[in-house]
Amino acid sequence: MLIAVLPGDGIGPEVTAEAVRVLEMVCGDRLTFKSAPVGGAAYKASGHPLPPATLDLAKRADAILFGAVGDPDCDSLERALRPEQAILGLRKELALFANLRPARLFPELADASALRPEVASAIDMVIVRELNGDVYFGEKGMRKTASGRREGYDIMSYNEDEVARIAHSGFRTAQARRGKLCSVDKANVLETSQLWRDVVIEISAEYPDVELSHMYVDNAAMQLVRNPGQFDVIVTGNLFGDILSDQASMCAGSIGMLPSASLDAGGKGLYEPIHGSAPDIAGQGKANPLATILSAAMMLRYSLGMAEEANRIEVAVATALAGGARSADLGGAMTTTQMGDAVLAAL
Amino acid sequence: MLIAVLPGDGIGPEVTAEAVRVLEMVCGDRLTFKSAPVGGAAYKASGHPLPPATLDLAKRADAILFGAVGDPDCDSLERALRPEQAILGLRKELALFANLRPARLFPELADASALRPEVASAIDMVIVRELNGDVYFGEKGMRKTASGRREGYDIMSYNEDEVARIAHSGFRTAQARRGKLCSVDKANVLETSQLWRDVVIEISAEYPDVELSHMYVDNAAMQLVRNPGQFDVIVTGNLFGDILSDQASMCAGSIGMLPSASLDAGGKGLYEPIHGSAPDIAGQGKANPLATILSAAMMLRYSLGMAEEANRIEVAVATALAGGARSADLGGAMTTTQMGDAVLAAL
Ligand SMILES: CC(C)[C@H](C(=O)O)[C@@H](O)C(=O)O
Ligand SMILES: CC(C)[C@H](C(=O)O)[C@@H](O)C(=O)O
Repeated sequence: MLIAVLPGDGIGPEVTAEAVRVLEMVCGDRLTFKSAPVGGAAYKASGHPLPPATLDLAKRADAILFGAVGDPDCDSLERALRPEQAILGLRKELALFANLRPARLFPELADASALRPEVASAIDMVIVRELNGDVYFGEKGMRKTASGRREGYDIMSYNEDEVARIAHSGFRTAQARRGKLCSVDKANVLETSQLWRDVVIEISAEYPDVELSHMYVDNAAMQLVRNPGQFDVIVTGNLFGDILSDQASMCAGSIGMLPSASLDAGGKGLYEPIHGSAPDIAGQGKANPLATILSAAMMLRYSLGMAEEANRIEVAVATALAGGARSADLGGAMTTTQMGDAVLAAL
Repeated sequence: MLIAVLPGDGIGPEVTAEAVRVLEMVCGDRLTFKSAPVGGAAYKASGHPLPPATLDLAKRADAILFGAVGDPDCDSLERALRPEQAILGLRKELALFANLRPARLFPELADASALRPEVASAIDMVIVRELNGDVYFGEKGMRKTASGRREGYDIMSYNEDEVARIAHSGFRTAQARRGKLCSVDKANVLETSQLWRDVVIEISAEYPDVELSHMYVDNAAMQLVRNPGQFDVIVTGNLFGDILSDQASMCAGSIGMLPSASLDAGGKGLYEPIHGSAPDIAGQGKANPLATILSAAMMLRYSLGMAEEANRIEVAVATALAGGARSADLGGAMTTTQMGDAVLAAL
């Protein structure tokens, strides 16, 4: 099977390299890897953050392993040429609408969370974030007001089909877990959220075994600190999901630990750590590769039908942590490669 | 001076009653109080969440003490008649564009935060949230897509004048504190945020003594958990401010503790607790009135020129807490009135 490896910017190349080493060890020659530039790196090499050859590779591959994009050098480029457009473009072009972001605290890392151990250890949730709509993809631009002042605008919207398909993802994810789904919106202010809530309620009729609740996003951000253990599955839109999943990941210890899967309707997926390109520590061997290694495990499970191999990787990560493997974000001093070595040794 | 008291829904009447008792004790007959219905209560009494007489009183008053709005009975009303429209209407009609939300942990409550004590005790920040623009007030509605599907939409926008005036509030707030301002946006995706960032940078030239930084909202939600002590003043838009300030308040212990001020350009203001109407505990005497009492103190300081009296109230709240006053949200069993009594006793 063909894996597209898109390392991207900053610490992206360092962390994807470790995940590839792990996949090679676990899957041997069942997997073929092909790399292509993406993000700021691609822009610098060829003038576009998502070159046609990269998009083509991503389309042909059975699954995509993605590092991170984002490069301060590119912040003043016109929006269409910025690194972020690469990941947004991949999500849209490949119709990867369902972003699964599991958050749980590895017991070995109870000390790494800013939350009290008894609060943090109760975290075991999946955030299901919609990735193809919302204010991310609506019409946007700069215009002038009637009095000639500059104005930036972005249209937020969801239609019922977009909400329905992610709602199904949310309900099915809940069915496979503890059967609780919390839909997060801001229906007391936004019409987009009102439609979201209406459609989620309609779809819920098909899932009588799932207990559905609704929460406003401001309250959800509060509850994720107060008592994150109350959540099983959260389903939410692109923007709220962006914010809440980063917050949840930090509640569960370090953002350097959490993987994600972005899936299309057929199960094809792009797998990436939740963290960004971290330009401040790029190239220094300080990055924690475990989020990417765990993303590789999700890839085996969701897109490649290798659940057993996925389990082996997850167990190896836990074993490495139990053995004391700690990168800087976890309060240790191990390099990116040493963290990868620790996982390989546990395998 | 005339204070408009707008108790609103749920626990609103209970908590504002305690704040009025405290103000009467501290200010004697310098203040006159006049109440009016607002929110779901006003809708039920007279068919509109913000009746003309209530708006008129708010306009005439020197300051407004507000409880909370929100009532599940009203969730299926058309949007214009829902309780939330009352607070949104007041903010807009009175041009209360600057919402100051201080968050800090009362040392007496170190045990109440879900964060580790050493993380929580470092919290001492003010979130300056814009209140008159953003996706809250843009055109919004339900429409049909080309293929006849329901679609909800809301237009997010800011123009340069709106950003400039809240940026000034942010810089001036930072000048009066530790001189650090962090502007939070999502400029890597949103044009509204790009304009926001551009204008904040332009305005920063007038405040060379303030150290300005920028952070994406997803990262900010993460940093508020990881290391909230890093923030002095955060300035952000209406939607991101809604989410981040609730999150920050919970990091600082209980949402039952945090006050807010919503100010116009001349210093007139509406003062309300950050928490909502909490219909689940309404009428049971369980609500913590301290956020509203602290909002009353902010009112004395920002709108009525009574800084000394404001200090007295704040000291009395700390004294009450040190003396063991604890409502349910703080792990205790004292009623709303008993909490008010404890503050009065400390005065
Ligand atoms: C890089 C950025 C465009 C992206 C997003 O906002 O979706 C990132 O924050 C994420 O969560 O994957
Ligand atoms: C009640 C609601 C409209 C309001 C808001 O979203 O602004 C509330 O959450 C707040 O933060 O004051």
